[in-house]
Amino acid sequence: AYWEQAPLVLLPFLSVLLKSHFLNSFFVCLFAGLRGISQVAAKIDMEFDYDGPLMKTEVPGPRSRELMKQLNGIQNAEAVHFFCNYEESRGNYLVDADGNRMLDLYSQISSIPIGKNFWEFLQGFDTFVNRPALGILPPENFAEKLKESLLSVAPKGLSQVVTMSCGSCSNENAFKTIFMWYRSKERGDNSVTKEELETCMINQPPGCPEYSMLSFMGAFHGRTMGCLATTHSKAIHKLDIPSFDWPIAPFPRLQYPLEDFVRENEQEEARCLEEVEDLIVKYRKKNKVVAGIVVEPIQSEGGDNHASDDFFRKLRSIARKHGCAFLIDEVQTGCGCTGKFWAHEHWGLEDPADVLTFSKKMMTGGFFHKEEFRANAPYRIFNTWLGDPSKNLLLAEVINVIKREDLLSNVNHAGKVLLMGLLELQSRYPHLISRARGRGTFCSFDTPNDTIRNKFIEIARNKGVVLGGSGDRSIRFRPTLVFRDHHAHLFLNIFSDILADFK
Amino acid sequence: AYWEQAPLVLLPFLSVLLKSHFLNSFFVCLFAGLRGISQVAAKIDMEFDYDGPLMKTEVPGPRSRELMKQLNGIQNAEAVHFFCNYEESRGNYLVDADGNRMLDLYSQISSIPIGKNFWEFLQGFDTFVNRPALGILPPENFAEKLKESLLSVAPKGLSQVVTMSCGSCSNENAFKTIFMWYRSKERGDNSVTKEELETCMINQPPGCPEYSMLSFMGAFHGRTMGCLATTHSKAIHKLDIPSFDWPIAPFPRLQYPLEDFVRENEQEEARCLEEVEDLIVKYRKKNKVVAGIVVEPIQSEGGDNHASDDFFRKLRSIARKHGCAFLIDEVQTGCGCTGKFWAHEHWGLEDPADVLTFSKKMMTGGFFHKEEFRANAPYRIFNTWLGDPSKNLLLAEVINVIKREDLLSNVNHAGKVLLMGLLELQSRYPHLISRARGRGTFCSFDTPNDTIRNKFIEIARNKGVVLGGSGDRSIRFRPTLVFRDHHAHLFLNIFSDILADFK
Repeated sequence: AYWEQAPLVLLPFLSVLLKSHFLNSFFVCLFAGLRGISQVAAKIDMEFDYDGPLMKTEVPGPRSRELMKQLNGIQNAEAVHFFCNYEESRGNYLVDADGNRMLDLYSQISSIPIGKNFWEFLQGFDTFVNRPALGILPPENFAEKLKESLLSVAPKGLSQVVTMSCGSCSNENAFKTIFMWYRSKERGDNSVTKEELETCMINQPPGCPEYSMLSFMGAFHGRTMGCLATTHSKAIHKLDIPSFDWPIAPFPRLQYPLEDFVRENEQEEARCLEEVEDLIVKYRKKNKVVAGIVVEPIQSEGGDNHASDDFFRKLRSIARKHGCAFLIDEVQTGCGCTGKFWAHEHWGLEDPADVLTFSKKMMTGGFFHKEEFRANAPYRIFNTWLGDPSKNLLLAEVINVIKREDLLSNVNHAGKVLLMGLLELQSRYPHLISRARGRGTFCSFDTPNDTIRNKFIEIARNKGVVLGGSGDRSIRFRPTLVFRDHHAHLFLNIFSDILADFK
Repeated sequence: AYWEQAPLVLLPFLSVLLKSHFLNSFFVCLFAGLRGISQVAAKIDMEFDYDGPLMKTEVPGPRSRELMKQLNGIQNAEAVHFFCNYEESRGNYLVDADGNRMLDLYSQISSIPIGKNFWEFLQGFDTFVNRPALGILPPENFAEKLKESLLSVAPKGLSQVVTMSCGSCSNENAFKTIFMWYRSKERGDNSVTKEELETCMINQPPGCPEYSMLSFMGAFHGRTMGCLATTHSKAIHKLDIPSFDWPIAPFPRLQYPLEDFVRENEQEEARCLEEVEDLIVKYRKKNKVVAGIVVEPIQSEGGDNHASDDFFRKLRSIARKHGCAFLIDEVQTGCGCTGKFWAHEHWGLEDPADVLTFSKKMMTGGFFHKEEFRANAPYRIFNTWLGDPSKNLLLAEVINVIKREDLLSNVNHAGKVLLMGLLELQSRYPHLISRARGRGTFCSFDTPNDTIRNKFIEIARNKGVVLGGSGDRSIRFRPTLVFRDHHAHLFLNIFSDILADFK
């Protein structure tokens, strides 16, 4: 069919025109969906393949060694075999950053099904199709893209970053990083014992120490089994799944409006902090040492529960005082939605965290950490993919737009319009809306109960507004960063009508 | 610059020419990398956004309801709000499959940074940039793409499939699925108690029962904390990480050549199976009931350890006899590399598994399971992304090529050439190569020790061949499915020279 062949005619034209590997990559991806294409392409895989290895330097060569040094500044890169030129890699052959061409019998730890750039038309298109094993064979521009994207928004003091595929994997690996750091601190100059090496293989201490992570009631940190042991937002997430006996502290239940309950809220926060310290002591006595504390700047699934900046500053100090790592989970609060790039920036701390996890709006999962939390050997924090470089490319562009368009100002402005409007509705309908709260556009309010909450969400949806629930009776706002004042007004008008009609 | 604007001129031309949403999507993705583009686009987001909601039906409308029914045949789809038309969605607005346009204040569970199709040129390009929350707002073609891709290769008896982002998340969620199934079996007709609902929130039984998964020494099932409790391949993966007291059975250590040790190997396998049964009984007595058994058809990280088809048939029967779920981890063995699409097909069983996990070559992670293992409520097996629909598209194409090009035959043929060659080298260099083994191209051999193994890998790499290690002294072959006979010969020639020169 003509429409199937037309793009082939245009390909060389555009490719030359665009003069960009990245664009070529994208252009070629155009053809991946074309059923007709691979019928042609598959016939020519023999011609398309290189005819043998071609070596120019030892491997890793000078270019790879140089890039390793760069990447090693950002994360433990000792597992990296060499850097790859995926544009030049084809069929069964991998080409490295020094131009060495190798027959590839390992195929990204067995994760490539039908050859690098198998289809002729996929030559040059690697980022979206031929997903590399980033931990051992990263693309040449990997460190550069990390610098352009993630490191350009690194939280204070956290110079290291590791990418992961999702929020749960990010928290799981952050926990592991913390456990290793803690053990290494305890071990001091002593080396790992034979007993540790043997017992860890059968899940027993001392090789697998009985460390714990302290979390908060109402928290959500993910659903894989390590994360799930720190998640306490809804029973449905946890029921029937074995877990760890780890300490769980109460999270402050603030009374609103805040200005009317200053003393009560201070007392409530003090009570929770005291409980944190008690639990650290108690679990140490139980021989389940608290290696780290994990907390969300706003409990984002468990009811949009806020605490004061002062609460977090004190919590951070408690962690430091007891030698526990402090892990901020910004999977939902990160990337600008609270009016700062990271929600913890509102606390104004010089040393806000030891480790910080992200995902969701960041396109890729992962975590930042201090240099002292670096894995002390390769392959300790590792998996086949370690994220996805195509997501890093997208994130770089997202961060560009956020900065250029000053979207944080927009979030602050539109968020103020939204929250003021909610407070106004709350004053008119106090029996239906309470505890209107928020930072940036990360707003929420409470309804009398689950049933009314779900009814509001349903009615709003039928009037053309998609809202989310949070906890057992809250409604949460999670718009994108291009939610503007007029969208807030639009919502407030629609919701005002809903409230007026509500029976 | 001209090269930045040129594609804009061509876009409408090609778009019309191609008449395909999918192609439009790909084409437009071409522009995502162009720095210049978003500078233009960001200015026009106000014009580009819709001017308000527009409702045509109640939500979910008839089309969404129809699609829900379809998806619900494949997985518990009760959490789905409605199906989306992402091509038509823009800025702050989500358009559903019935043509309803809604102001979106939830943004895929807070996971979209700057608006659906924010850039004008990204209109129509959703699959690779605007990753949806598949569990609640899947694209219109979601069930159809699952049928074209994953369900077209579903293992015998496993009609249900859930997608995940990576192999570890797949195993974590398979474990959870098994724990829920087991508890539900135990619970019978009784409903969940108040005590269960309360204790699960604080990680305690009965809400979080002390169930276990039985795994094998030498196994690798991932590195998140649930998976890691079943991984026993290398100390470096497990050291310093708290774990569960779960049963670990020995995996057969077969003696080679197999034909010379028939009786010994039978005894070895019988010993391991006996130990499995003993552990099930022992852990039940310890009140750590074995809810499931997890096993790789070939231990793929822990040394390429094989067992006979008979061993697996008996293991599967033991699981059935004791009421344990049987989970096959085909993350590394799946997708054709052993000469069958799934390695367990070699066992020739009618009822091979209750649950099967996949990832790596399959482009997306996930797991298949029997209907009786379906989550009994929405949001129990759930996370924000539940995989990535762009990977499903790629997988559909990969499966097409595998079938059309009969790549399984190729794997069998090239694998035979490779293994025969290895056996021949082994007969010439018995002091350097032993236990040559494999299925399809999933081959390996042993070297005398770690040091010599790593030296072989290094020398081979400098001669242009990339190999992987497995376990403590094995070398593993993991080529793609387009590894042909001549590649096997090429490798064998190079390696023969290496052996001849080796000192």
